[in-house]
Amino acid sequence: MTRKLDNDLILRAAKRKPTERRPVWMMRQAGRYLPEYRAVREKADFLTMCKTPELAAEVTLQPVDIVGVDAAIIFSDILTIPEAMGLDLEFVSGRGPVFHNPVRNDRNVKNLKTGIMPEVEYVGKAIEETARQLDGRVPVIGFTGAPWTLATYMVEGGSSKHFKVVKKLLYSQPDLLKSMLDKLVVETIEYLDMQIQAGADIVQIFDSWGGILTPEAFKKFALEPVRTIVEGVKTRHPKTPVTVFSKGARTHLPSLAATGADVLSLDWMIDLGNAREQVGDKVALQGNLDPAILLTDPAIVETETRKMLDCFGNGPGHIVNLGHGITPEVPVENAKAFVEAVKRYRV
Amino acid sequence: MTRKLDNDLILRAAKRKPTERRPVWMMRQAGRYLPEYRAVREKADFLTMCKTPELAAEVTLQPVDIVGVDAAIIFSDILTIPEAMGLDLEFVSGRGPVFHNPVRNDRNVKNLKTGIMPEVEYVGKAIEETARQLDGRVPVIGFTGAPWTLATYMVEGGSSKHFKVVKKLLYSQPDLLKSMLDKLVVETIEYLDMQIQAGADIVQIFDSWGGILTPEAFKKFALEPVRTIVEGVKTRHPKTPVTVFSKGARTHLPSLAATGADVLSLDWMIDLGNAREQVGDKVALQGNLDPAILLTDPAIVETETRKMLDCFGNGPGHIVNLGHGITPEVPVENAKAFVEAVKRYRV
Repeated sequence: MTRKLDNDLILRAAKRKPTERRPVWMMRQAGRYLPEYRAVREKADFLTMCKTPELAAEVTLQPVDIVGVDAAIIFSDILTIPEAMGLDLEFVSGRGPVFHNPVRNDRNVKNLKTGIMPEVEYVGKAIEETARQLDGRVPVIGFTGAPWTLATYMVEGGSSKHFKVVKKLLYSQPDLLKSMLDKLVVETIEYLDMQIQAGADIVQIFDSWGGILTPEAFKKFALEPVRTIVEGVKTRHPKTPVTVFSKGARTHLPSLAATGADVLSLDWMIDLGNAREQVGDKVALQGNLDPAILLTDPAIVETETRKMLDCFGNGPGHIVNLGHGITPEVPVENAKAFVEAVKRYRV
Repeated sequence: MTRKLDNDLILRAAKRKPTERRPVWMMRQAGRYLPEYRAVREKADFLTMCKTPELAAEVTLQPVDIVGVDAAIIFSDILTIPEAMGLDLEFVSGRGPVFHNPVRNDRNVKNLKTGIMPEVEYVGKAIEETARQLDGRVPVIGFTGAPWTLATYMVEGGSSKHFKVVKKLLYSQPDLLKSMLDKLVVETIEYLDMQIQAGADIVQIFDSWGGILTPEAFKKFALEPVRTIVEGVKTRHPKTPVTVFSKGARTHLPSLAATGADVLSLDWMIDLGNAREQVGDKVALQGNLDPAILLTDPAIVETETRKMLDCFGNGPGHIVNLGHGITPEVPVENAKAFVEAVKRYRV
């Protein structure tokens, strides 16, 4: 996809090239804090929105128009892949995602469908529609869940607090878990490839749960699959930046930087300056305001945002973001205050 | 309290003195995985057990007798202090602890009771009864919650996933939060003093939620109160070892070691060898097997436990433990396999 972009700040920052100011977007920026989002959500359930390109594109564009962010992340969910592999997904109100047929044994893993791109074609269509409507105003971000994170949902059967089932599997049948992760890696490379072909200018891999593993297990079950995916995507699309967000992985930054990713997205539990010392000029950094700060007021948001920007220091390679997704209770004026504070900031 | 101990391994290891073998105990070792515990629990609710010295002593001794651990941690709860300060505590089945009158504003903080030792005298009595029944077989561990962790429950009104209320308070009214923490610090020093006078040979401060803070907030709201408590306890009881467990604080080990604590208790997300490099010979280390390993079988428990012991390396100063509390589903034979693996291990 080569099309002219009016604003390519995020793409330049991802490659650590100079920018006039730092680019900014927010994880979960197409979300419930926006009244305009809630209006669409009233007409359709979450999965229907993901699977209807016009609706997905509509909410994907909202934060660009309303909040003024520098990129549009496609409205979708990390669980599209497990669902397409044969898991029966339902979003249960007050409980989150539920898989009614979790993966627990050898047969379950064998039965996972492969070659599932036709089943997730709707994501490509949503990206195409988004890119068409954006018409080059800002880049489109595609994304996927990391295999380990997907595996936690697939094995636990949904969200989890202590991850007992998947950890028991990890320690008792590491080869079975590995074979499941291998299947996920193959599909994920195809998935990101498809998204890039559909118009994604940069892609992000979300590993929400690598941080709950021991260092040894992290390397084997969280990091290695991500590394293979980055390699696979880079082979096909050497110019498309790849971002890795590994929540709670603040002691693994050098290993994450060595995956070949262009950008590491950080949670708020580490200082950007400290992170930068650890990874040097190997990667750009994304993040990392504590999203809870957006629950306060515009003045506090501005002060804390400036502190975070100061903490990164000078030089290129900072894509400003939150350390995690924006939450539904955030007043829109606070989200705007965050974006405005970044846009006003110089150096 | 000077009484003769038959087994003082944990006390020597806490001071980094040589021991014949490494001592071992488990966080939440007096708990639901033991049928004998469940039998007592059937007769009395959780808070009644805490407040009845005979019942508390009975379950405190169970893991010493049944599993063979090298220390008895008093059966109690970190929320005893907030309750005594005037919060209406209830343990709601399936939901955990609930405070019906959470602390949200200036008036709430002012109304927190001080000088509450008479209200928590039952903890001292339980320790006395435990020490009497143990008769020097193993040391008694006293404990408290860290002020920041207590504050999260007091402000949120119970357990929390995203800590939005307390974080909003932290960012909008830091002085109010600080004054609340100051009150908790004063009571906590008295509380640990009382426990030591009653017979606790070593005390542990549990900070479950420091790890969710930014580095700046961690220093101010989690670390500093703990440092003041360690200092206060050490002034009164210079010989009693103090352990600090700060879950998720693996990037703060040097600061935690500088609090004056004798022992840092670690979660499983960091290698013991790596942790040791960071803190040098300043403190002993406690931990840190992933408690999920106890869900497997005795052979895997033994293998993984030996790996963890190898990882610490040679030399004194290792109190073996889990990286977090033992969970109810653990088969007793696996808990025993953990303890036995440590006892058999040499070097």
